[in-house]
Order: sequence, then C-alpha cells, then structure tokens
Amino acid sequence: MTHTPLSNLGEFGLINHLTQQIKLINSSSIVGIGDDAAVMDFSGYQTLISTDLLVENIHFDLVYTPLQHLGYKAVAVCVSDIYAMNAQPTQITVAMAVSNRYSVEALEEIYTGMKRACAFYGVDMVGGDTTSSVRGLTLSMTALGIAKKEQIVYRNGAKVGDLICATGDLGAAYLGLQLLEREKQIFIDQPTMQPKLEGKDYLLSRILKPEARKDIIDFLQKNQILPTSMIDVSDGISSEINHICKASNVGALIEEQLVPIAQETSLQAIEFNLDPITCALHGGEDYELLFTINPKDADKIRFSNEISIIGEIIPAQDGIRLQTKGGNFHNLTAQGFKHY
Amino acid sequence: MTHTPLSNLGEFGLINHLTQQIKLINSSSIVGIGDDAAVMDFSGYQTLISTDLLVENIHFDLVYTPLQHLGYKAVAVCVSDIYAMNAQPTQITVAMAVSNRYSVEALEEIYTGMKRACAFYGVDMVGGDTTSSVRGLTLSMTALGIAKKEQIVYRNGAKVGDLICATGDLGAAYLGLQLLEREKQIFIDQPTMQPKLEGKDYLLSRILKPEARKDIIDFLQKNQILPTSMIDVSDGISSEINHICKASNVGALIEEQLVPIAQETSLQAIEFNLDPITCALHGGEDYELLFTINPKDADKIRFSNEISIIGEIIPAQDGIRLQTKGGNFHNLTAQGFKHY
Repeated sequence: MTHTPLSNLGEFGLINHLTQQIKLINSSSIVGIGDDAAVMDFSGYQTLISTDLLVENIHFDLVYTPLQHLGYKAVAVCVSDIYAMNAQPTQITVAMAVSNRYSVEALEEIYTGMKRACAFYGVDMVGGDTTSSVRGLTLSMTALGIAKKEQIVYRNGAKVGDLICATGDLGAAYLGLQLLEREKQIFIDQPTMQPKLEGKDYLLSRILKPEARKDIIDFLQKNQILPTSMIDVSDGISSEINHICKASNVGALIEEQLVPIAQETSLQAIEFNLDPITCALHGGEDYELLFTINPKDADKIRFSNEISIIGEIIPAQDGIRLQTKGGNFHNLTAQGFKHY
Repeated sequence: MTHTPLSNLGEFGLINHLTQQIKLINSSSIVGIGDDAAVMDFSGYQTLISTDLLVENIHFDLVYTPLQHLGYKAVAVCVSDIYAMNAQPTQITVAMAVSNRYSVEALEEIYTGMKRACAFYGVDMVGGDTTSSVRGLTLSMTALGIAKKEQIVYRNGAKVGDLICATGDLGAAYLGLQLLEREKQIFIDQPTMQPKLEGKDYLLSRILKPEARKDIIDFLQKNQILPTSMIDVSDGISSEINHICKASNVGALIEEQLVPIAQETSLQAIEFNLDPITCALHGGEDYELLFTINPKDADKIRFSNEISIIGEIIPAQDGIRLQTKGGNFHNLTAQGFKHY
C-alpha cells in the first residue's frame, strides 16, 4: 500500500476524494454530501435517528482490526439501532477524527468498508465531517431511518406473558475478542511467534465484521409479526433485558438451556476456562436483536432458524432472573459499562 | 466544584443523570433519548442533517475554554450549518468520548451549556452516545432541521450580478484565539503572571461563545428574502466564497472596504502586527453567514444593521478576487485545512 500524506490533498480535497463515488439510492435522499447539510424528504413516514461513537483503543484495536472491517462495522453498529426499532435505515452521516499518522490510503480502506456496508444495508451516506486528532482515530456515525408510525417498536411495550426472543447466537463476539487479545499479548511478548487463529474464523468474524440483523426485520415484516419490545444486543443480553424490563415495568425469566450458543463459542469458552452461558449473557458486541412477542405469534417465529425463544416476561416484582440447567435461579444484573 | 468519578454512576446512570431534565419542545420530536433511536415526524417538510466533530487540542483548549461555553459552542456550531441552508434546526444528537480524568461535574457543565444552547435555538436533544476515550475529550453533534422545499438555500445558486452579503463582523474569533494562545504561552513560561485580558470581552466571546445566526434566518423570512446561495463562515470568508463559487460555477469580486470588521478586531490585529483584512478573510470560527442575493432584494437588506453587502458575483472566468482599498486586485484562495 502506498502512503500518501493527508496534507497532499488538503481538507476539502480529502473529503471530495473519499466521497466522490457515493451515489444516492433512497428516494428520500434529496441532496447528500457537499453542502452545509444534507436534505431528506420523509413525507408520510416517521423518521428515526441514532448515533454511535467508536474510539481507537476503546472500541477497536488497529493491531488486529483490518481497516475495511472497521469501516463496515462502524456502519453496521449504527444501523443496528435503527433495525432495533423495527425500522429501515435510509441515510448515514460519518464524522471522523484522525491523526496525521494516517495516510490517504488508510482512510480509503475505512471508506471502502463503509461504502460496502451502506450498499448492503441500502443506506445513503449523505454527510460528514473529517478533522484531525492529536492521537488515534475516532469514528462517529449517525443513522436515520424510517418506519410507519404503527410499525415502530420501542423498549417499553413488553407485557407479562410475552415470549422473549433472541436472534442468531450469543457470546461469539466476546470470545473472538478474547482470542485476538491473547494473540496480541503473545505477539508483544514474543514477536517471532505466529498467531494461532486457524479454525477460529467464526469467532473472529463475529467481532471484526458483525452484521446488523436486517434479515430479521424483513422476516418480521413478511410474517406480520410486530414485537412488543425490541433492543439490539451491544452490551450482552443480561444488560439488554434489564433495559427492556425497566422501560416496560416488567420482569423476565430466561432459561439457560434455551439461550443460543454456537458450538465454536462453547468450545472456546471451555478452552479459556469460562462458562459459555456467562459469555452469552454478559459478552457484548453480538449485535443480535432481543425482542418480545405476544404468545399468539409464537408459531410464526418457528419458521425462522435464526430466532430462539429464550424465556418469558413475568411481573416486575418477580425480578429479572436466569433459570439454570440445574434448576437454580440467579438474578440477572445489567453490566455494560466496561469503559470507565 | 466536587469531583465525582464517572465510575460512581456507571454508563447508564451517567446518561440518565445528564439527560434527565431534557424536555422535548418541537412537535416533530416524538420520542427522544432512551431507546435505540429517537423518532421524529416531519410530514410536509424536508429534513436536513448536519454533523460536526470537536476534538480537544484541535478545536478547543480546556486551559482557557470554560466547559459550559464549550457545550454551548458545540450546539451553536452544529445548528449554524442548518441555518446556512435557510432552515430551522429542530433536533440534535450528541456523542461524547471522555477519559476517566473527567468528573461527573465536568460533564454536567458541558451539558448545562448544551441545554442552554438548545433552549436558545429551540432544538430538542433527542439522543446520544457517551463512551470513554484513552485521552482527551471529543464531542460529536448531529443536528436535524426542517424547511419547506422551496425555502432551502444551497451553495450552488449564485448568479452573475448577485450581491454578496456577510452578517455581523469578521475576524474577531481569530483574534480572540490569538489572545488566548498568547496568554497561555505567557502562563506556561511564567505561571505567576496574571493574564492580560481586560477590555477584550468582545474578541473572547467571539471565540469562546459564538452564536449561530438564527436572527438572520428569521429576518430573511420576515422580509421575504430568499438568498440565491448561502454558507456559514467556519473557515473564513475567503474559503467560503470559494465553496459558493465552485458549487455555482461563478466568480466573485469582494471589496476590502466593504468587509465588516469590528473596531476591537482592527485594534487587536494592529497590536499583533497583522493586517485586519487578512484576519477577516482567513480567520475562521466566526460562524457568521455568507450569502448571495438577487440585486432586486438589495433594498430589503438595508433594514438590517447586521448584514453588509461586500461584493458581487462575476463570471467564473474572472476569478475570485479581492479589490483592495488601494485599488489593487488579489486572488482569494481557499485556505481552510488548518488541521493537518
């Protein structure tokens, strides 16, 4: 890869260079990048907005994160919040602070990943800001989306008796991260060692290139299922079910044996002397969806291999609990907050 | 000021604490902070979005920036882009990366400034993300706004013969910054010296607490003036007129003697051995508006003390030029790009 200094292009040249091939695909995108603001027209639909910040050495480590994957993930993380409202993302803006140790080619890699994600999710990149930082890379994404008013799913609609559903499988991203951290440490201690990551593709892809669950939102719409509450799984389902229960003023009972965990996740957890269910409950960054449905919709859910019923909404006074395979009950507490 | 560690509240507690008193004031704001995304309803209006990133030690220096002012300025900078489209800002999201050397009270100060700015501009804070950083503070703001389709003013509508207008006065923020940098350097060299900033209130307020020109947008609407092009002055009018001319495929002639410069700015420039017009043309961060109008609207502009006609749009082949008081002509080049 060549290394063109950022100063060769200048600020305005850099923005033009990175965004010149962006074509708008949504009819609601009237004017994109290039003026003081982008212009959208959403007549007849409600508009959703969500924003996320990814900070180097907090949310990602460039030692083991390919830049294209980082760009892809930044978009996926942000649109995931829009899907979690049962809406379709339509536009995104990206603000980026980079130090001058980054080259133009490095930023192109990030943008390439972003553009691929935008194409996959059908989102238009309509604006942004590029500035320098003293040190490190910070990415800030804001996604807009649309939905018909009656289709929007909030966190506060869960009712006693509703079934709790999780998509995909859980805990894999956390174990992928542990693997990468282990290999990084070995590399720091013994730089001649080769990383041992063969056969770990699934776990690595889950942390490095997660997908937002557009497919699930499409499935729900096609099968006329309107969840009663929904949230995306960024901090682990233990934390997310607490958000739903607090907003809905209900409790929850999750059954350990129903929580979907991939075989790769279980094996890797055991290798690390961790309990797989702990990784699945508290490991973050899976970007799956956690939602509740009226029991009358249970039969429709069974058409999807990607959705597991993992428990039931119970009265608030009964708490938020896990029933273990051994039949014991544990309180599920919100963890999150890894960062401070 | 007490110093409560961020870890006392936890991530979710912190967000609740900082955002609990936020009340929504725009009817288009359906649901604000607290779910995966905020929900807006803009039926009948086009929607505008703009995003900005402010990075510690690039865009602000906490040695001399009060935190409330920083919060206020972050909002003002972002809504300024919406006003520059002749639109009204309606919602804002704020993402913030902070290291754990910040206290809860420090973040409260920033939010206090943001909330004051939101109240002043009539904007709802509807979402955000708060995360940690390895070092320093980064603020990312995204503003939404609305306008009737036919009222939106882009950069690309300037026509030969249009008059070029600037609001307020120019160059003051740049000189305020030079003053603060000088006093900082003196303080570093001789910590017992008291800063000499008496009588510099105007210049300091221009850099520390700029206002977006909501009043101008209201004036234009009241007087039924629709600019042919408009941009906000973040990088200096030399850079901004280049943006307008490039987008509109025209040239410009600006007359030095018509460029509005406050007396405080001229005196301070001379004290620093700088040419006042250079500060006015190339100094950034004034957050004034630069716009063009059809000459038929010239009489209406004269009702405002806050708008100066500073030149005229000319054919593209005649370039983008400054006519000095001495009658000479200079090319005006875009500078911007101070950061790399």
